[in-house]
Order: sequence, then C-alpha cells, then structure tokens
Amino acid sequence: MLLLMDEREDTYLIKGDSEFHCRFGFIKKEVLAAAKPGDILESNTKHKFRVIQPGMPDYIGKAKRGPQAVLPKDLGIIASYTGIRSGSRVVDAGVGSGILSMYLAHIVAPQKLVAYEVREDFAEIAKSNFKKFGVDNIEVKIKSIYEGIDEEELDLVSLDLPEPWLAVEPAYKALKTSGYLTSYSPSINQNARFMDALQSRFQSYTIETLERRWNMDAVRPSTQMIGHSGFITIARKLY
Amino acid sequence: MLLLMDEREDTYLIKGDSEFHCRFGFIKKEVLAAAKPGDILESNTKHKFRVIQPGMPDYIGKAKRGPQAVLPKDLGIIASYTGIRSGSRVVDAGVGSGILSMYLAHIVAPQKLVAYEVREDFAEIAKSNFKKFGVDNIEVKIKSIYEGIDEEELDLVSLDLPEPWLAVEPAYKALKTSGYLTSYSPSINQNARFMDALQSRFQSYTIETLERRWNMDAVRPSTQMIGHSGFITIARKLY
Amino acid sequence: MLLLMDEREDTYLIKGDSEFHCRFGFIKKEVLAAAKPGDILESNTKHKFRVIQPGMPDYIGKAKRGPQAVLPKDLGIIASYTGIRSGSRVVDAGVGSGILSMYLAHIVAPQKLVAYEVREDFAEIAKSNFKKFGVDNIEVKIKSIYEGIDEEELDLVSLDLPEPWLAVEPAYKALKTSGYLTSYSPSINQNARFMDALQSRFQSYTIETLERRWNMDAVRPSTQMIGHSGFITIARKLY
Amino acid sequence: MLLLMDEREDTYLIKGDSEFHCRFGFIKKEVLAAAKPGDILESNTKHKFRVIQPGMPDYIGKAKRGPQAVLPKDLGIIASYTGIRSGSRVVDAGVGSGILSMYLAHIVAPQKLVAYEVREDFAEIAKSNFKKFGVDNIEVKIKSIYEGIDEEELDLVSLDLPEPWLAVEPAYKALKTSGYLTSYSPSINQNARFMDALQSRFQSYTIETLERRWNMDAVRPSTQMIGHSGFITIARKLY
Repeated sequence: MLLLMDEREDTYLIKGDSEFHCRFGFIKKEVLAAAKPGDILESNTKHKFRVIQPGMPDYIGKAKRGPQAVLPKDLGIIASYTGIRSGSRVVDAGVGSGILSMYLAHIVAPQKLVAYEVREDFAEIAKSNFKKFGVDNIEVKIKSIYEGIDEEELDLVSLDLPEPWLAVEPAYKALKTSGYLTSYSPSINQNARFMDALQSRFQSYTIETLERRWNMDAVRPSTQMIGHSGFITIARKLY
Repeated sequence: MLLLMDEREDTYLIKGDSEFHCRFGFIKKEVLAAAKPGDILESNTKHKFRVIQPGMPDYIGKAKRGPQAVLPKDLGIIASYTGIRSGSRVVDAGVGSGILSMYLAHIVAPQKLVAYEVREDFAEIAKSNFKKFGVDNIEVKIKSIYEGIDEEELDLVSLDLPEPWLAVEPAYKALKTSGYLTSYSPSINQNARFMDALQSRFQSYTIETLERRWNMDAVRPSTQMIGHSGFITIARKLY
Repeated sequence: MLLLMDEREDTYLIKGDSEFHCRFGFIKKEVLAAAKPGDILESNTKHKFRVIQPGMPDYIGKAKRGPQAVLPKDLGIIASYTGIRSGSRVVDAGVGSGILSMYLAHIVAPQKLVAYEVREDFAEIAKSNFKKFGVDNIEVKIKSIYEGIDEEELDLVSLDLPEPWLAVEPAYKALKTSGYLTSYSPSINQNARFMDALQSRFQSYTIETLERRWNMDAVRPSTQMIGHSGFITIARKLY
Repeated sequence: MLLLMDEREDTYLIKGDSEFHCRFGFIKKEVLAAAKPGDILESNTKHKFRVIQPGMPDYIGKAKRGPQAVLPKDLGIIASYTGIRSGSRVVDAGVGSGILSMYLAHIVAPQKLVAYEVREDFAEIAKSNFKKFGVDNIEVKIKSIYEGIDEEELDLVSLDLPEPWLAVEPAYKALKTSGYLTSYSPSINQNARFMDALQSRFQSYTIETLERRWNMDAVRPSTQMIGHSGFITIARKLY
C-alpha cells in the first residue's frame, strides 16, 4: 500500500495496483508501481503528492469508523496498561469496525488474535478491512462471546460490547491467572455495571483520557477537541 | 519475579529468591519458591498476600521515576501513533529512569533497542533497572545523541531530552523515510523549538493527554489527578 | 479584615483587632490598626508581611471547607450561566461550609439571600463564617428545603444537596417563570436522577469544568490538579 | 426583549416590537406584545414557541462573537477570582465583540464600566450590541489603553488584548492597591510575556479551564467539546 500526501496534508491510502484518481486528477499505474517512500508524484494536473510508506497508524486513521470508534489514545491505553506484546494470546470481542482488533493483532503478531462478532454483516465489513490493510493474523468467529470463549490461558480479553458484564464469566474462565480483561464503553453506567460483575475475582480500575492537539504556530491548544470517546476499565484476574 | 498484593491493594514486586520482609512480617524463601499466580501467602503475622504474575505494567509502576517520568498514557501514545511492534528498529535517547526504553524494548522484542545516555551515572541506574526486571534486549550507549546516531534505517527515534532540537539532524540521518521521530518534553516551549528544527523534512503535530481515574463506588471522577506529564510531538520523516 | 502575605506567598487572614501571632513571631495590635494595603509589616523576628485588602476570593480561600467544597471555577459557572446580579432573589439550599451562599450573597447584595440548612450544627458553623467575614445579607433558615420554600418569584434556587431531586417540586413553585434552578453534585448519578425529576417543566443541561494552573517559569502546566469537584446542572423553569 | 424557544430547543432572541419571521412562519406583532414568560405562541404554520424572559446569559449566547470570544466559563473565572460585584470600579480594554464588557457591566451595575477600544469600527459594533441588549452602564472610549487610563482607584482592569504587557504600566497606575488586573489570551506565550511585565508589583497566576457537557440520556460526556478558548492570568496589585 501507499500513502499519498499533498501539500495541504490531505492523505490518500491506496493499493497502488491501479490508476489513482482524485479531484486533483489522476496518476498512472506504472508511476505508482515505481514509487518509493519520499518520492514526489505529480498528477496530470500537476498536483503534487509525497509518497509515504503507510503503517498501522495510517490504517487506523483511514478505516471506516462508527461514532464511538476506539481512538489511538485508547488503543495506547489498552496496550500500555496490559503490557501485551508479540506472542500475547488475545481475544477481542465486539469487533465493530475492527480497529481495536487490527491494532492488537499488529502488536501480538505473529500470534493469531481471535475476534468474536455476533453479527455476520459486521464481521464481513471487519474482514474486508483486515484484508484491505493486509492484517492476516486475525481469526474472526461469528459467535457471541456471552455464550463462551473457546480459547484458554489468554493474556487479554478485550471487550467493546453494549453489555460487557455478560462477558465476565466466559472471560474469567478463558483468562490465565494474572491475565487482563478490558472493557471500553461510552457510558459510565456500563462501566459501573461491568465492575459490579467482576466481583473480587478481579482487581480493577476505570479511566478516561482526553487528548488535545496544539497549534504550535500560535503556541496554543487547538479549538477543536473530542470531548469523549469511551471509559476504559482495566481488570486483572486475581485467582 | 513475583508481585504480592495485600487486601488494601498495596503491592510488592520481589525476586522471590530470598526471604520477603515488610512491615507486616516476613515470608520464607521456600514458600515464595513454591508460589504460583493466584495463591494466597501468609506472613508470620497472618497478613495475607495474593500472588500475581508481574509484567511490564508492574515494572513501569515499580521503577524508580523522576518528577517528570513518562506515564503509561504517554507510553501508549508513542506506541499507538508510531505503530511500533515486534521487530521495529528503535533508538531511544535520554534514558533517564529507563521507563520509556523498557516499554519500547518490550514491544520491539526480540529486536534489540539501542538507548543513548550521555551521563554514565544515569546509564548505570537504568542498566540496573533493566537487569532487575529481566529486560535483556536493550543496548545502552554512553554517548550524546546530539553527536550522531550509529544505527541506520530506523523505524523510530524517541527523544526525552532537554534540547531535543539538537537531535533532529542526527535523527533525520538515521531514520528510514516514513519513519518516526518523537519528542517528550514537559515545557511547551521545548516542543515549539523542536518543531522549528524539524523544518519541512518532517510532518508533525504536538499533543498532550490528560488521564482521569473514576471512583466507581460513587460513580464520580477521583479528586486526585495528574495535571501534566509532558507534551509529545510526533514527527514523520517525509523524504 | 486584613490579609497578610509573606515572601513565600503564604497568607494569613486576620481581623486586625488583636495581636497577630504565627510561627514567624508576632505583630502588635497598634501596628495592625495603623496598617494600610500595600504596607510591609515586620514581626518581632523580622519576618516581613505585605498588607492586602481582602475580599470575597480571600474569604472563599480561607473558609473551612469540606472534601467536596464548591471551588471558584464552579461559583463562576453558576454566576455566569444564571446571570445573577445585584438584586437577584436567591435561595441557596444545603449550606454546608457556606461558601456558595457567601459568594452568591456577595453578588446579589444588598438583596438578602435565604439559605436553607436542615442541620442545626452546620447552620451554626456557616453563620459563624458569615459573621467572621462580614457577610450580613444572608438569612439562615433551619429547615429542609424538601418540605417547601417560603419565598416566591425567585430568580435562582441553588442546590448542594445529597438528594436534589426531592427539592425540584418546592423549587418549581418558588421560582418565577424563566428563573434558574442549579444543582451541584459530586456523583453523575445524582445529576441523572435530578434531571429525571425536572421533567419537561425545565430546560436543562449538565456540565463539568476542569481547571489547570500553569507554571509560567517553565511554561508548562502544573503537575498538581484537582480531578473533580462536582457536576453542575443548570435548569430553567419554562412555564 | 423576548426569547422564543421551539421544541427542538432552537432559540430566537427578539425585540418583540415588530412581526417575527423565521423559516417556520411568522408571529404577529400584537401577539408578541401580549406574550408573557411561559406562554406558548404559534406561528401561522402552527410551529410552537415557548416564551422565555431573557437575561445576560442569553445575550452572551446570542451576541456576535469572533473566533476567540470569551466563553461563560471564562467570564465566571474572572468574576469569581476577582470578587467583583455591584459598585466595583472596572475598566475593560480590548472590547472586541463586547461580551466581556457586557457581562462585567451587568455585575457592577449601577456603577458605570469604562471600555477602551482603539478601533472605531469595533467600538461601533460593540456599542450597537450594548444598545440592542439594553446594557446602559458602559462608557466606550475610542482610545488605546497602552497610552494611559483616565480612571483611578479601580478594583479591576480587565484585558483582552494582543499585547497585554503594554497595558501593565497604565493599569498599575490606575488600580487601587489590592485591586486586580486580568488578562485573557489565546496563546500561552502572550501570558508568559504579560507575567514578565508584571514584576514583583503584582502577585499572579495563570489558569485555563476546560468545560465539558454531558449527555445525560446516555450518562456519558458529549463528543463535542471546545478544546481551548484562552489562558487567564489573574494578577493583584501588591503596593
């Protein structure tokens, strides 16, 4: 894949195996095939594009996302507070747009991540995203995690579900002792009910983060800011 | 290593190869040697401790940290916005307490991370931390990154330095095209000066995050909160 | 009253009608009696104090406050979103430490503010605060606002109560049409239940504010920050 | 004036002395003249509007505002940290859209507030706002505050200027001892330079506030949030 960025920092993530078209003209397939990171390509209308080697942050930015999609700040929280890494055994439930699954799979590779999604249509969209971005270590199961987890001795069960409390029992069974269970929910009440379900078998805490960009030309924070994505509960299986 | 947690959730990170002593009594070496995650151990004074299998988040929490130590929220930001993973080639400069190096090394393992630290005393402390926590894929160089980077084709150069702008030139040379340069600074003016030095060779933005814990018994945010750790600039080498 | 501030910006709010004693020595009554704002006074140990003319912000800062006291940022929110001013007719319920009553009374003066407090011991403490700081336009009623409000055609009913929903009915009756009802609660669930009780008779919204101080020597935010005081619901009587 | 609010909580602030027209039809002048707060009026297309008695918060919400207009949270901060009230002597400089002047004038009434504005065109717009909203205790001077303040013994000098440091000297002269000087600036560097100019004659601190609304149906914060308005420095004349 290639990321093309023009002078206004608008970006286009493309496969590069066919002609590229946008409102600033087109670039031929042969030109794209020969492009290397750092090159400047010109469309037929002389609009200039810098070629960038894309990676997971670009895929996350370009994936289709619902209104409450997991943001990079939240992906980072889940990664840093659970300590997952290459080889970690992870089940992700409530695949949705697939962003969280993709990010976690990218970290645990070459280990396979198993993603549970009860709705077949959602699963299809997620699978097409994984294919598009070349993420090949996710196995999608069309199944409700509320009904059980097939995997065992997991390092992390990650939830992005409307009723995460229903997944506590299956997750408890599937996790190894000292493993992590995380839940991402927009509403604080969902987190409250989830924590109730954890009981004393887990140690847990709930956090939220706010991210603010700065306009460094004026040395002031940007006016635009996202006020909320979700609350994240981090729980650890004690016994 | 073992993490012992008592009923008040106070934790003790120990090697487990000698008798454990704290103000609640002691636990014998043989008992620790036989302990498995999930067990409850009792001190001679009947104080109870749950055994937890520790990991990187615990090491980060227990490492000696200066006043402006990188927090998990910031580690997560650097990980998620740069997309580093197993195998990524990373140089970390300004090792300090070694927390950022440890976290990044844990992600990129088995790849070796190279850590630059100009002060020999700091380097010694960091090295003893790495050894203590069993992080064996960090090579520490006693050298100022301002004078050059020996490594090439890097995916990430990560800076936690008082004058990060002096490292831009060496980082530019050592990074592969489309690779990332990040800088973590407490003062916004350091970030402003750093961004000036990047020039048009990098695309960049500066962010800060605030993390707030919630008291879920009362369903209210905690009163205590850290108001600031550092501003993070994420830059990407364009050509 | 006089505010004395030493070189470390530690402050002392005193009546000035008797000798002043602190750990840095004492200042005689006659010296205090002759002091004018801007003067520098010296204790017998040569410790220097600047004389400042105190006002409401100092009284707020020096009043004894409970763990969830209303902060200046919250006082300001209530003032600016309700538009109260000299002459506004206000009832404040749940006097507590009396800070909110004092601030509102100071704004509406010379109009009298009526403060409802069900606990006689709290009322006594608040009254002694009002007397100490010379706030003479507050009438304290030892009465539960849940049982009714004697006043009519009010511009604002301000609540800082554990069960604010029980005060909605009395407040509705006592407010003039287009008047304001505000509630300050630490827990978001209290706000949710309060909003349910408002029904369609009120237009309402809930906000929270975070205040951060900056260390301008380093041009960075302060590390210390209060993560939460309370959520404020602003409601307006529609008919 | 009248505030009309329809069922979607869209509001219209009108004088009520002529027919009201909007995209939902019109309401006749005679109907408006007879309307009382709490009434429901119907347009010719049967669109319903609730009549609300407007006040300063509505005027602030409806005034034309530039990109960095002072928000209610900031108005509240200035009011609560300086303790201004009816009778306080205030000069406001850098009138701009006039929002800060209007709010401060509303608090200090019947005392007159003096507003300095160097640009005649801005002053005209502000004056037409004051007239429109019936704020009659503001005297606008077409004059740069950098060249001096005619008033004396002020309780507050409030600045919203691009170079607030140039106003420190005139403000120092015009303030009474223990009076307040505040400055509102979007850029942190403006605040830093302003604080440098204050020297030891003032005690000062810089704060920023973030305001977040909650969606109480879902018990979650709103996604939309303003990331920054301005930094506020509160300074107090010491001698």
